Amino acid sequence: MNPYQAPLAEMKFLLEKVFDAPQTWASLPEIAENVDLDTAVAIMDEADKISRELIHPINRSGDEQGVTHQDAKVITPDGFKEVYSQYAEGGWVGFCGDPEFGGMGMPKMLGVLVDEMAYSACNSFTLYGSLTAGAALCINAHGSDALKEKYLPMMYSGEWAGAMDMTEPQAGSDLRNIRTKATPNDDGSYSITGSKIFITGGDHDLTENVIHLVLAKLPDTSGISLFLVPKIKVDDEGNLGEANGVTVGSIEHKMGLKASATCVMNYDGAQGYLIGKPNRGLVCMFTMMNYERLAIGIQGLGTSQAAYQMASDYAKERVQGVAAGGSPTGATSDPILVHGDVRRMLLNIRVLTEAGRALSVLTGQQLDIAKYGDGEAQAKANRYVGLLTPVSKAFLSDRGLDAAVTAQQVFGGHGYIRETGIEQLVRDTRIAQIYEGTNGIQAIDFLGRKVTGDNLAALTEFVAECSEKLASLSQVDENQKAKVQALFDELIEVAQLVNDKKLSNPAIINACAVDFLDAFGHVVYGYFWLLMSDAASADVDSDFASQKRYLSDFYITKMLPRAKYHLTQVREGESAIMDIPEAFF
Amino acid sequence: MNPYQAPLAEMKFLLEKVFDAPQTWASLPEIAENVDLDTAVAIMDEADKISRELIHPINRSGDEQGVTHQDAKVITPDGFKEVYSQYAEGGWVGFCGDPEFGGMGMPKMLGVLVDEMAYSACNSFTLYGSLTAGAALCINAHGSDALKEKYLPMMYSGEWAGAMDMTEPQAGSDLRNIRTKATPNDDGSYSITGSKIFITGGDHDLTENVIHLVLAKLPDTSGISLFLVPKIKVDDEGNLGEANGVTVGSIEHKMGLKASATCVMNYDGAQGYLIGKPNRGLVCMFTMMNYERLAIGIQGLGTSQAAYQMASDYAKERVQGVAAGGSPTGATSDPILVHGDVRRMLLNIRVLTEAGRALSVLTGQQLDIAKYGDGEAQAKANRYVGLLTPVSKAFLSDRGLDAAVTAQQVFGGHGYIRETGIEQLVRDTRIAQIYEGTNGIQAIDFLGRKVTGDNLAALTEFVAECSEKLASLSQVDENQKAKVQALFDELIEVAQLVNDKKLSNPAIINACAVDFLDAFGHVVYGYFWLLMSDAASADVDSDFASQKRYLSDFYITKMLPRAKYHLTQVREGESAIMDIPEAFF
Repeated sequence: MNPYQAPLAEMKFLLEKVFDAPQTWASLPEIAENVDLDTAVAIMDEADKISRELIHPINRSGDEQGVTHQDAKVITPDGFKEVYSQYAEGGWVGFCGDPEFGGMGMPKMLGVLVDEMAYSACNSFTLYGSLTAGAALCINAHGSDALKEKYLPMMYSGEWAGAMDMTEPQAGSDLRNIRTKATPNDDGSYSITGSKIFITGGDHDLTENVIHLVLAKLPDTSGISLFLVPKIKVDDEGNLGEANGVTVGSIEHKMGLKASATCVMNYDGAQGYLIGKPNRGLVCMFTMMNYERLAIGIQGLGTSQAAYQMASDYAKERVQGVAAGGSPTGATSDPILVHGDVRRMLLNIRVLTEAGRALSVLTGQQLDIAKYGDGEAQAKANRYVGLLTPVSKAFLSDRGLDAAVTAQQVFGGHGYIRETGIEQLVRDTRIAQIYEGTNGIQAIDFLGRKVTGDNLAALTEFVAECSEKLASLSQVDENQKAKVQALFDELIEVAQLVNDKKLSNPAIINACAVDFLDAFGHVVYGYFWLLMSDAASADVDSDFASQKRYLSDFYITKMLPRAKYHLTQVREGESAIMDIPEAFF
Repeated sequence: MNPYQAPLAEMKFLLEKVFDAPQTWASLPEIAENVDLDTAVAIMDEADKISRELIHPINRSGDEQGVTHQDAKVITPDGFKEVYSQYAEGGWVGFCGDPEFGGMGMPKMLGVLVDEMAYSACNSFTLYGSLTAGAALCINAHGSDALKEKYLPMMYSGEWAGAMDMTEPQAGSDLRNIRTKATPNDDGSYSITGSKIFITGGDHDLTENVIHLVLAKLPDTSGISLFLVPKIKVDDEGNLGEANGVTVGSIEHKMGLKASATCVMNYDGAQGYLIGKPNRGLVCMFTMMNYERLAIGIQGLGTSQAAYQMASDYAKERVQGVAAGGSPTGATSDPILVHGDVRRMLLNIRVLTEAGRALSVLTGQQLDIAKYGDGEAQAKANRYVGLLTPVSKAFLSDRGLDAAVTAQQVFGGHGYIRETGIEQLVRDTRIAQIYEGTNGIQAIDFLGRKVTGDNLAALTEFVAECSEKLASLSQVDENQKAKVQALFDELIEVAQLVNDKKLSNPAIINACAVDFLDAFGHVVYGYFWLLMSDAASADVDSDFASQKRYLSDFYITKMLPRAKYHLTQVREGESAIMDIPEAFF
């Protein structure tokens, strides 16, 4: 049994048939010169090969061995350095990076699929490159030309890594309270002093240098600024010089993700360079954070796909009991796939994973239009990116844990044993619901800023576009279309209720945000399923079309009603949550 | 901060006010001579002290150190042997055991609360005693007088431990396929040969002997019989003799529960003694299994309580952000308990845990009446035990994982760090959904045997009694009563739909069982909340009554609608699950 096989047919189907990547790319000259559908397919084949043959083999051993901190050095598990080196040489770190500085200039719409494969293969490994790509994106968007020229080529090539340094012990979700200080030097640089915790890839032995993006405060201000702080100083010719006062205090011992170095970082007068304007650090950092938020959603998606494959393979091989109405083959024991409850679990994972992939491709597409498009198309894409990013992060990572836990259940007792590997998926993916802003924070961003912040303008626009598309589908059941449309309508109605109450009852946002995001996710997934089923039906007699019809029916019948439950929760409002005196907790 | 405090007031309230333990006990002479409410309260005080001061301190260190297998010996972590010795000396292993053989003869209605405290303190530790008590219960129910006299006193005293040996690599949920053989010896004993896997407490250094209850097949039969097989032989005077051909092949490396020894056991002509009749081993083993199933539900419940306490303490201490609408104290940063989403998470855990405790006490009460009562009261209690056992096992352990994961989310990034301890709860409690029959198996037992097996007789009887009680409540909102009653009615209606289809569509049981069990659990919890709110209102102005009203309102408003969702799932039936061809998975 091959342990991981990328769902290449699914991926191509989404690009070609569901979201019409060829048309999108043709409309964006900077993308069109780099890629077309055939190239994309060839790239995905290669990404599958690398994920399966290069990355996946170090997944289990990396978990068992973990990262160590010895003699002030952070050591990754055996094989990580060699694999990272090959991965970087293949250009994967700079896959969506700016070609002007050595990136491959690939669209994010394709990048999300490549990322999914890598996360399916190994959560821990893939983070190192993801943070590097995110840091590079931020430097490219907000850094000076000098910084870009000095750092980006080395980051896109994977020779240097990147990290994002925000959290301090007293400042997690609330960054106002950070204490790291930045003092101006005579040469225009800054001296950075302070401590950061939970820094993913804060230090390691994969690369010669680690480029930190550090939030710190300038003297006499409560504003937060962003600084580029290399672990090793870089001279004007780009050569590595002396150490820069950046040291690792310790590494965290975590539930999972044991091959990913999570560091306490200490800055002792380290030389840093301002990125963007003073006191505008959070705005700049959000460029990286939004990138990482989507990436972390894809961590959950990649986990879901890996979990499905493992559980589905096991359910076909493991023989136990007979089918309810008697064995279909007359055997005394059947594969457990005959049992309704096992099928139910597998289908739950499957339909949420496939719709999740549609969400990630759509979000990637909107990121591409926002970056490379112009005019109203670009402006609209920016609004959609704002709307979809917190949903991608939270809904995909929540479903990632659900998928891993459900798949583990399919394995029965064997799922609890480390050697089986499925429990590692549970431990590794659990963090995705927490870091880069907890999923509660994502939901509050979604409902508080993205949905009600503009009085439902972006949401209404997005839903109207979905509704129009839905109405145009000719190959799916009208009754199912009506069900999804009714829930879209109710979603807007409930959002309006919240919007009407947000000033008189400001606690409603925080108290109802998670349910609202979950409602949105489940309705949009219903829409995606009908889109996919319709698109597949072009070749109506194919197994592929038939599969999509069955799965779409399952989703609409069995999963879509969850949207209704979550909408009920939002309708009930905040009082049952907020009225209880604090002393009663 | 004290890390664990048993909710003693809650426990006493359930015994005294909600389920009227004094009246139940007074009606059962064998219980009445051992315990009254005052004694029960004193016992709970002591159990709290032991759980908090003795057991809880070895919880984290036990997880870090784990069990080891060295030189054919299984070694528990530091402190486990000493703590177990004190725990056994206190009589806790034989707490509900038969006084004729040295047990304390305490009611299970009290035992479930004592068990909950121990599981809250340490999942791994508590399993050793729980399996011993379960094995003793089975020997007492089905063993010969000679076996009882020889083994039970040493097991109730905790000097010897017990284990349950069922699973083999090819025989997990489906025990028909076990291969372990039992050959008759001339002296009336049997020679047992074979291998068992996943044996909790299969061997360890806590006790001098381990008494295994082993499922095996007699020659020339496909029937399964049950045998008592001691690790060390015991002579007629009760002295330990030579080794009995029982060895440990290896110990499992698991996701959690690392201080609990999970063993591969090998039997090589080991001397065993038949328990019960030949080929009736599963019936006998079910005595132990049902006991353990409730115990494992209580593992989930104990985890939920511990998770709530940890998360609630953290939410009061951790300062981050300000309340929506401004800080209530005018501070620049508030404890995160002010945030609606944090409150929502805590309340979710809280209301499910308190109702879960009611379920465990009710199940314990019915077990006591079934064991010590007579006539129709006993027969009815037996029916209720049949109904409630799979629900207690599955619903409490599912809520245990939910609680631990939700509490971990409250901790943010700190929840992913091992030192914080909350991630251990997630890892430790995850197995409770799997072992002693997966929760899918529990649900199938519930819907297939307990609900539809008697054409809804027991369910209808139970619901009618709940409805009558519900109608009699005078201190709760009539509208809330009507909501719960309507869901009880719908539950019966949906059960009838399944019952009507079970012959024509046999797959419906397996495919819809989990949703049906979840629907039942959520409706019954609504009923428990109204019972509790009503019972608390006797002292209407008290904080206790006020708390119960708020929590009950939260449950009815925010959690009860889940029952509706699950009922919808059952109504939709099995076709969306079963129609999909196997090749499409």
